[in-house]
Amino acid sequence: MDKKPLQTMSADEKAALLRETKEAYAAFQAKALKLNMARGVPGTDQLDLTADLLNALPAGADAVSETGDDVRNYGVLTGIAEAKKLFADILGANPDEMFIAGNSSLELMFTVMQISFVRGIAGCEPWCRQEKVKFLCPVPGYDRHFAVSGYFGAEMINIPTDENGPDMAMVKELVENDPAVKGIWCVPVYANPTGIVYSDETVRAFAALKPAAKDFRIYWDNAYCIHHLTEHPRKPLTINQACAEAGNPDIFYQFMSTSKITFPGAGVAAFNTSKTNMQELQKAIGIMTIGYDKINQLRHVRFFGTADKMRAHMEKHRALLAPKFNLVLDTLEKELAPYGLGKWNRPEGGYFISFYAPKGTAKRVVQLCKEGGVTLTGAGATYPYGNDPDDSNIRIAPTFPSLEKLAQAMELFCIAVKYAALEQMQ
Amino acid sequence: MDKKPLQTMSADEKAALLRETKEAYAAFQAKALKLNMARGVPGTDQLDLTADLLNALPAGADAVSETGDDVRNYGVLTGIAEAKKLFADILGANPDEMFIAGNSSLELMFTVMQISFVRGIAGCEPWCRQEKVKFLCPVPGYDRHFAVSGYFGAEMINIPTDENGPDMAMVKELVENDPAVKGIWCVPVYANPTGIVYSDETVRAFAALKPAAKDFRIYWDNAYCIHHLTEHPRKPLTINQACAEAGNPDIFYQFMSTSKITFPGAGVAAFNTSKTNMQELQKAIGIMTIGYDKINQLRHVRFFGTADKMRAHMEKHRALLAPKFNLVLDTLEKELAPYGLGKWNRPEGGYFISFYAPKGTAKRVVQLCKEGGVTLTGAGATYPYGNDPDDSNIRIAPTFPSLEKLAQAMELFCIAVKYAALEQMQ
Repeated sequence: MDKKPLQTMSADEKAALLRETKEAYAAFQAKALKLNMARGVPGTDQLDLTADLLNALPAGADAVSETGDDVRNYGVLTGIAEAKKLFADILGANPDEMFIAGNSSLELMFTVMQISFVRGIAGCEPWCRQEKVKFLCPVPGYDRHFAVSGYFGAEMINIPTDENGPDMAMVKELVENDPAVKGIWCVPVYANPTGIVYSDETVRAFAALKPAAKDFRIYWDNAYCIHHLTEHPRKPLTINQACAEAGNPDIFYQFMSTSKITFPGAGVAAFNTSKTNMQELQKAIGIMTIGYDKINQLRHVRFFGTADKMRAHMEKHRALLAPKFNLVLDTLEKELAPYGLGKWNRPEGGYFISFYAPKGTAKRVVQLCKEGGVTLTGAGATYPYGNDPDDSNIRIAPTFPSLEKLAQAMELFCIAVKYAALEQMQ
Repeated sequence: MDKKPLQTMSADEKAALLRETKEAYAAFQAKALKLNMARGVPGTDQLDLTADLLNALPAGADAVSETGDDVRNYGVLTGIAEAKKLFADILGANPDEMFIAGNSSLELMFTVMQISFVRGIAGCEPWCRQEKVKFLCPVPGYDRHFAVSGYFGAEMINIPTDENGPDMAMVKELVENDPAVKGIWCVPVYANPTGIVYSDETVRAFAALKPAAKDFRIYWDNAYCIHHLTEHPRKPLTINQACAEAGNPDIFYQFMSTSKITFPGAGVAAFNTSKTNMQELQKAIGIMTIGYDKINQLRHVRFFGTADKMRAHMEKHRALLAPKFNLVLDTLEKELAPYGLGKWNRPEGGYFISFYAPKGTAKRVVQLCKEGGVTLTGAGATYPYGNDPDDSNIRIAPTFPSLEKLAQAMELFCIAVKYAALEQMQ
């Protein structure tokens, strides 16, 4: 049957297309494919790119940091100086305002929130003794962020986003008038899942916020800061520069990690904030641990040497990832666009494609894919409480499968979107 | 002057000895020694024992766990199966009841306490919503333990200890009658700092506790479980066996790490508790992190192979540490015993010698040592709130310095004890 927009089809044509789609679905199920695309997981070929990291600090090598500390032993809570310099360079931050930790930036985010909850920051009552705590959540967003703020009992408020980032008028209104609003989750570069890069105007609007709560902080998760998919990436304004210019240096906590640069299981996470904030947090972190894995920190520094080399290394990831993103986008363009089905972004970096199925069909699409052998991120996961009010957004994570498997998965995905849309129209 | 008990000396003799001691102290100060003995830190020679650990998982090696997971990638929250087996064997636990984490057992203790505080366990209200939380602290004990329970606002209650462990009548009385008592810190083997190994009777008394609070747990920090200083170490009853026999499997959380087996900065920490407890805690930990460093877990498994090999490896540590402990003990015996000054233990393992200076002099001894160039653990640190009611206990940490430096430090220490005691008698 010719491809044309569903709304131009007669009832008979739609019925015929649904029959055809169901047959295609059944044929696909018969293949008994098993593929998990639920998470933004690097492919094995990407992990192999940094195989030599494992040899970067061998037995007998000098295991002493530039400040003279044996990285094998206890101490140096805030991380080794050379790692601070490396990550500061990547973020455009001051090395004195860096904290280098373990393998998980999510754990760092959890930890700084835990400190606000248990002990309180900036002279405020701990959240656990405040009546109500609210968190702003630009949507669609990252489910693990929402899980963390939910864990600490925060009421989560959806903030719509467009191609420039979160709705800053709404953010300003809430942050500046409601002292229960304690934070906002941001993925400023190649956002999870929308791929949006916050505009400089958005970053400046964040830096200019005058929060009603002294213990409000922007949680700036710069997870994809150098994870470009294009040859000439944009150079967004850094939160550091914007906040310095606005005279508002204490308002943000910034995070990054090498989880998607080296190894997700064994990378290095970093945290950046003002010296004032850092001093406060350090005291609490020093009760939790004597220090993080400095051998792995030094291993990373020895492997990369400089931030420029780390940036250059990302080109190798791009070479592996860009074809996967193109395959997904081409398939959507070819299989769904002619039917007028769905909307999606064309990300210039990051790990995801954000797909909007016809309203009310996302759950069904995910279910059909699952029963067809492909596990996607759960529908609704990109919203707080797992509740997408439109039941529309689906996060596509194309990085882990091979191109061949990804092609199969996308074939199924497009069948499922058609199937669910036509079924709904009946 | 002849060495004899101070209490048998005349006032003149004591005055003369104080003058002599002050001269010795001044002579020592002139040497301008700088030595930090504040913490239980392995010596560089100990770190070199596991240098080859850094080569145990090189580039190109099979990086797949026995369950088929690529250890370089995300996931496997509770740790790789082969690491669970290795650590379970060391603890005498069930591999299904093990959780293998990052580089810090202290952080694990903090984390499980955080879960009780923020979310609550065993169906109880979170601690943050309970009026009062109390923690039992066998003294002298480990300052970092006290800092953790203090962080969560617990009122800490001193529990006296003798050569069999904590005063179990007092523990039973408090745990079984006061629902505000939520936990007790235990270092059951070569306790920090007393070196005590809990007797089997003590372990059984712990296992038999019937807490008033459903969310009471024993925090069993088995940090020194295989850190023997004698050729034929005792084989204490495990908490696992005792609790299984008592039908009380959910009452304990057990911790260990390889911080003092491989590298303090980059070892592997493990946590052991019943399946019921584990399921509850896992859910909360899974919000905090996607997983720990499995590369380092596999690296440790590949390096050691078996628990027996890990135990055998500890003999190499003993060869380096036993002479240091003997030097300290011999010096105390020679320099202080004849004056009837001080009491101390002769540990069969662990990292510390617990020294009792004459009442009211510990702070002064530590100050004199500091001004003489040797930093000791702060006086009072071995008690909650840093408050040793007798101002007597000092933790001696002999592991880090070379034998030569340790001899100098102990010379100063003995001078300082004499100095402070005589000064006090004036």
